[in-house]
Amino acid sequence: MRSVGVVVEYNPLHNGHAYHLQEARKITEADVVIAVMSGCFLQRGEPALLSKWERAKMALLAGVDVVVELPYAYSTQKAEVFAEGAIKVLSALGVDNINFGSEMGVIDPFYDLVSFMKMNKSSWDDQIKAEMDTGVSYPRAAMEAFKQLNQHESTLSLSQPNNILGYHYVKAISDLNVPMDASTTKRTVAQYHDISVTTQSIASATSIRKNLSQHEGLQSIHHVVPKTSYQILEEYVNDFGTYHTWELYFPYLQYEILRSTPAQLRSIYECEEGLEFRLIETIMQASTFQEWMTLLKTKRYTWTRLQRLATHILTNTTKKEMSEVTSNDLAYIRLLGMNETGQQYLNRVKKDLPCPLISRLAKAEGTMAKMDDRIAKIYSIPLVKNNQHSVLKRDYTMSPIMKKNNNKEDSRL
Amino acid sequence: MRSVGVVVEYNPLHNGHAYHLQEARKITEADVVIAVMSGCFLQRGEPALLSKWERAKMALLAGVDVVVELPYAYSTQKAEVFAEGAIKVLSALGVDNINFGSEMGVIDPFYDLVSFMKMNKSSWDDQIKAEMDTGVSYPRAAMEAFKQLNQHESTLSLSQPNNILGYHYVKAISDLNVPMDASTTKRTVAQYHDISVTTQSIASATSIRKNLSQHEGLQSIHHVVPKTSYQILEEYVNDFGTYHTWELYFPYLQYEILRSTPAQLRSIYECEEGLEFRLIETIMQASTFQEWMTLLKTKRYTWTRLQRLATHILTNTTKKEMSEVTSNDLAYIRLLGMNETGQQYLNRVKKDLPCPLISRLAKAEGTMAKMDDRIAKIYSIPLVKNNQHSVLKRDYTMSPIMKKNNNKEDSRL
Repeated sequence: MRSVGVVVEYNPLHNGHAYHLQEARKITEADVVIAVMSGCFLQRGEPALLSKWERAKMALLAGVDVVVELPYAYSTQKAEVFAEGAIKVLSALGVDNINFGSEMGVIDPFYDLVSFMKMNKSSWDDQIKAEMDTGVSYPRAAMEAFKQLNQHESTLSLSQPNNILGYHYVKAISDLNVPMDASTTKRTVAQYHDISVTTQSIASATSIRKNLSQHEGLQSIHHVVPKTSYQILEEYVNDFGTYHTWELYFPYLQYEILRSTPAQLRSIYECEEGLEFRLIETIMQASTFQEWMTLLKTKRYTWTRLQRLATHILTNTTKKEMSEVTSNDLAYIRLLGMNETGQQYLNRVKKDLPCPLISRLAKAEGTMAKMDDRIAKIYSIPLVKNNQHSVLKRDYTMSPIMKKNNNKEDSRL
Repeated sequence: MRSVGVVVEYNPLHNGHAYHLQEARKITEADVVIAVMSGCFLQRGEPALLSKWERAKMALLAGVDVVVELPYAYSTQKAEVFAEGAIKVLSALGVDNINFGSEMGVIDPFYDLVSFMKMNKSSWDDQIKAEMDTGVSYPRAAMEAFKQLNQHESTLSLSQPNNILGYHYVKAISDLNVPMDASTTKRTVAQYHDISVTTQSIASATSIRKNLSQHEGLQSIHHVVPKTSYQILEEYVNDFGTYHTWELYFPYLQYEILRSTPAQLRSIYECEEGLEFRLIETIMQASTFQEWMTLLKTKRYTWTRLQRLATHILTNTTKKEMSEVTSNDLAYIRLLGMNETGQQYLNRVKKDLPCPLISRLAKAEGTMAKMDDRIAKIYSIPLVKNNQHSVLKRDYTMSPIMKKNNNKEDSRL
């Protein structure tokens, strides 16, 4: 069975994602589509609007055959580490090909750039260091260094988020030396950062989230998400009364920063260069997460980097713990859902897996399992109401979704 | 000027307290009454219903001349440490006499018991150890040991909370070897633990708090608190919309326990003998603080002991920090309020103080100041609403209340 891997967040799954799935399958002539999906918190340091279970269901209903979780240790990370984690998971599952969206839709420039950057690594590093000494953020410095280095070449633009991720997927395949091809699908219409939903049927996830959070309501995004996604979005807000936004977690974050000593904050992953004092200084002046982020922002750190730090504080993710998890091999792969095709595929590759494929977190042990369990509980806190504290245990005991090919009913394994 | 010290919580100040103040002044023929009052959290491990400023005002309006704060390191502690802290503060202020409430209203049995227990310390300690080996709590073991030791003597009953505190005040005077007399006022009518407010004009603070928290409303306690206390209680709920109860803090406590590792919980003061695992196990099953406490309670630990542990978790008070503060001399005494008589007194004793008398926390440094500042911020969290986040800074910058003798207006220093 030919397989293609996709790296996704589906926050939420929209028509652009559905189109990408079709194209990925077509381009690679794959029999099976494997998605590795961020769990509770996302690459940009935000909670996912809906839990991983609802998003996995969206994926299965949009044509994905297997959904596995990208562990928190990789999901809430800069592009380089995020991509490395995703490639580790897909490669462990024996995936032949990765397909990602890009602006141009041509794969060669990604390979070319990876080779070029490897060859020029030391001059690039020197140039980044020089740029950072002027006080700018790492991504900005990397971009400037890249421009300097690349001024006589006509290569890939790294100013687009999707190109950056694509570059890092190809680089991780090369760095990890895994037997996987990369291919790319040209993105249509909406740009990653677009903030308004138009009348067209494809809109960016950013613009969709904006509409959902500003209570323009589900109705306003009806034409840009598959019907199945729409139903799941509707059910979630009916069941739990809310989507997960940073504002719901802000009181806890504020409490935590007021409660912590500078040394405790310093132990948190990505709390560097005295940021702990800035966190403490600004937290009492803000009433909302957005307000706080605006106070916290400096030239040195990107908004996304600071949101990731906020997530790590909220979830108590320390430097020590993160280093322990990411410097080791994958402890397990967590299955979130599959259909019959996916099940066939997993049965075939099962014997060659380098780590356990687990159906429930309750079956895993070790630092990564503890981390994912703790984080799922913290993610669920805003769902606790009317004495339904059992929601906190939901993720720990949940079994993967099993979607039958010939009817719409899904069940648990 | 003859001075008498009282150790108080005033949660809230009621007619029984007002009576005690009159009697204390009369019995000791004192010119000035000095109250050392718990700040944000109380001996039983509960938040004070109203902030220290409102309770200090109640005290001044009921006849206290100087109100100083009992630091958190002593206020939320078992009777022995609580009493030691209070005596340290009063003695630093040069107080001649301490007066406390007791069931019998006679001081000699307290002195006798302190001498008797000193003489029999080693047999008592042995007996306590033997009792604890049966699995009971320390207070229960101490009581049983006391009964064994004391069976042929007719002395003070240590089964009354006020007698226990009184015993520890007298013991601390002796242990610390400070030149202070002790005297006692016989308590009238209400017992410490009484839970219902009757038609009589004196009710226990426990019953008053119960009426306030169960929304039987202020009106139901009108006849058992001075008019001035009543007004302050009324204003507080008008200004802030709430009194401080454990339930308001429970979501933060629950979040914190879900967020923490066992090792982090173990570092918290009073988290002993594997209690961290019991905390984690029970916290997901409870929707309210009361429910959680019921799940947490064992034969080994008293309710009060566990409430104090909950407070230390909420406030991030570690074993290390607590030991640092309590093993050192008092770092400062914080003045909360005074009247002109109090000011005169303080002017006289000022030059002999063994530590600074501070008017604002912003003027203090060191571990105890950091602790009191952090705790005041956490205490204020439930008051934050409608963007009034400045309430978090209230305690740090607040100056003592200055009450003029001849008019009712009060001002800040």
